[in-house]
Amino acid sequence: MTIPSVARGLTQARCWAPADIAADVAELLIASDLRGIASHGTARLPQYVKLAEARVMDPAGRPRLEGGKPALSLFDAQNGFGHHAGRVAIDHCIEHAREVGAAIAVVRNSNHYGIAGWYAMRAAAAGMIGMSLTNTSPLVAPTRSRVSMLGTNPIAVAAPAGKHEMLVLDMATSTIPRGRIEVAARRGETLPIGWAIGPDGSPATTPERALAGSLQPLGGEESTAGYKGYGLSLIVELLTGILGGAAFGPNIIGLFSTAGKSDLGQFYMAVDPGALGEPGAFVARLEQLIDQLIDAPLIPDAPGPVLYPGQPEAERARKQQRDGIVIDREHHESLVLLARRFGIPLPDGL
Amino acid sequence: MTIPSVARGLTQARCWAPADIAADVAELLIASDLRGIASHGTARLPQYVKLAEARVMDPAGRPRLEGGKPALSLFDAQNGFGHHAGRVAIDHCIEHAREVGAAIAVVRNSNHYGIAGWYAMRAAAAGMIGMSLTNTSPLVAPTRSRVSMLGTNPIAVAAPAGKHEMLVLDMATSTIPRGRIEVAARRGETLPIGWAIGPDGSPATTPERALAGSLQPLGGEESTAGYKGYGLSLIVELLTGILGGAAFGPNIIGLFSTAGKSDLGQFYMAVDPGALGEPGAFVARLEQLIDQLIDAPLIPDAPGPVLYPGQPEAERARKQQRDGIVIDREHHESLVLLARRFGIPLPDGL
Repeated sequence: MTIPSVARGLTQARCWAPADIAADVAELLIASDLRGIASHGTARLPQYVKLAEARVMDPAGRPRLEGGKPALSLFDAQNGFGHHAGRVAIDHCIEHAREVGAAIAVVRNSNHYGIAGWYAMRAAAAGMIGMSLTNTSPLVAPTRSRVSMLGTNPIAVAAPAGKHEMLVLDMATSTIPRGRIEVAARRGETLPIGWAIGPDGSPATTPERALAGSLQPLGGEESTAGYKGYGLSLIVELLTGILGGAAFGPNIIGLFSTAGKSDLGQFYMAVDPGALGEPGAFVARLEQLIDQLIDAPLIPDAPGPVLYPGQPEAERARKQQRDGIVIDREHHESLVLLARRFGIPLPDGL
Repeated sequence: MTIPSVARGLTQARCWAPADIAADVAELLIASDLRGIASHGTARLPQYVKLAEARVMDPAGRPRLEGGKPALSLFDAQNGFGHHAGRVAIDHCIEHAREVGAAIAVVRNSNHYGIAGWYAMRAAAAGMIGMSLTNTSPLVAPTRSRVSMLGTNPIAVAAPAGKHEMLVLDMATSTIPRGRIEVAARRGETLPIGWAIGPDGSPATTPERALAGSLQPLGGEESTAGYKGYGLSLIVELLTGILGGAAFGPNIIGLFSTAGKSDLGQFYMAVDPGALGEPGAFVARLEQLIDQLIDAPLIPDAPGPVLYPGQPEAERARKQQRDGIVIDREHHESLVLLARRFGIPLPDGL
């Protein structure tokens, strides 16, 4: 699949997305696949189609600026694609950060927006520090709670790093994403303590109990500081749903449920080091720090050198850009079905 | 000790702090003691005196605005107290956030600044979301590294929560602070996996090996997502030392070492929900979310109800404000010694 073919598919479906919106969604999904984050790439297309056909999401919805000041703006995504609203919002931040040094945009009434890191990377590509946060469906149990009250609420931050790959932290505030437990189920693995709890609230060491229960916040159990991951998830909620006036916490309807609209909240920020003079000095310092980190002496049995956030994904993107994106059979079949349905010609051999 | 008596002590020492700077430091230290964070309160006074007497820190140093734009400013703390520079910087953010909606200040050439949460709380007391970050001495080993390369780099965020205590997340990005290992050593405890590594890089299960080694980032081992805590610590470094042009990572000299100045970097942000209209609606949403969190059904053997960040500290502060602050013998003796040396009368019974 290419960006034009994905975008064409999105525009050709009935009641479907205008070309510019479809192009944003397509770019995000392909970027996710390239970086090896299959869970947020083109594999989501069938779900987006389902949401649009159920009229739970409006694929033609365009973000509307609702108000704010130069460094803090509010958008209503009008229940459109989160990807498009996010692209508009981070571009708005970049533009305003050039004027006033830093700018935030919060978005309400939004939907799933793919990989949080993409928006942060867009600011980094403009020479700035970028940040992107979103709330998500409740899947995580706060410390001491036996039920899910908060989402995996990701934090993404990116910055240009000169000779190194762009620095991109893009992390769920749960120990692991739910998809990792599905992988463990397929592989018949047991789970370490700190990943998930079962429906009764005790640690889940089998994928089955974990999938029926809740994820644990980063840090896991209370004794290993799981309350910090809970706190981070709550801060993401504060800056997205609570600040933006979207749905929040346990009140969010499943992102891919047709029972109702998601009404997600998202937060974007761009910070321009150039506003402090010497933008080159900022990058030079970051280059030096990364040099120091990757040269650190290793623990016994380390599986490889010290990495920095975004490095493995950038290396994978480079390789897949050259050799093609590897996807699994189920993903491939779902794309072939969609392509046939909407009359999109597939490249030879697909 | 009271705020006036601590401040008087700081001004009376030779070559010591002007009254307004001393008042800021005193307020921070007492606030920390009240909230039960003894490690960042008046127990630090002997170390500050030592740094000032060694001329490694300038107790009269005042932050100087170096440049920036309305939403992003840079201060040089001129090697003064981090507490005073931070109070000035967060007040600057609050003032500018009222105009442009949100504002950031980064500070370089700074020193230890006490509890990160205090600055965030100052913004929250002004009706805003506050954030405060600092880099610190290298004590944490990045995932796969067997040596310390980053600090415990705390993240603090606060917001007004209406009928509830103020929401205050104030957390090191390591699993636990170093002081917790010192406590374990005194108690003869063994350590869980995920707290620390020994000098050879393998997990430290005794306090002795941990104290000779490095703390682990939040999440602990690689299998339990310790790379996320490492990533968060690195982002704090990015926004403080790297953005501000201070010392960073492994290059920071111990905060309480007289071998050289600390040159810390700090980051402050204020975000004004009032800029988006309906500030009352923001607080009402946060009240509702906290109501939902604290009512969550509990896991088996939960030591108490679900808490929210800042709640236990606020309850302790209220109690100690009423009953007095409990400190240990060593702390008490160090204060008595300082008081005698600088001729500060102690209250009856101390």
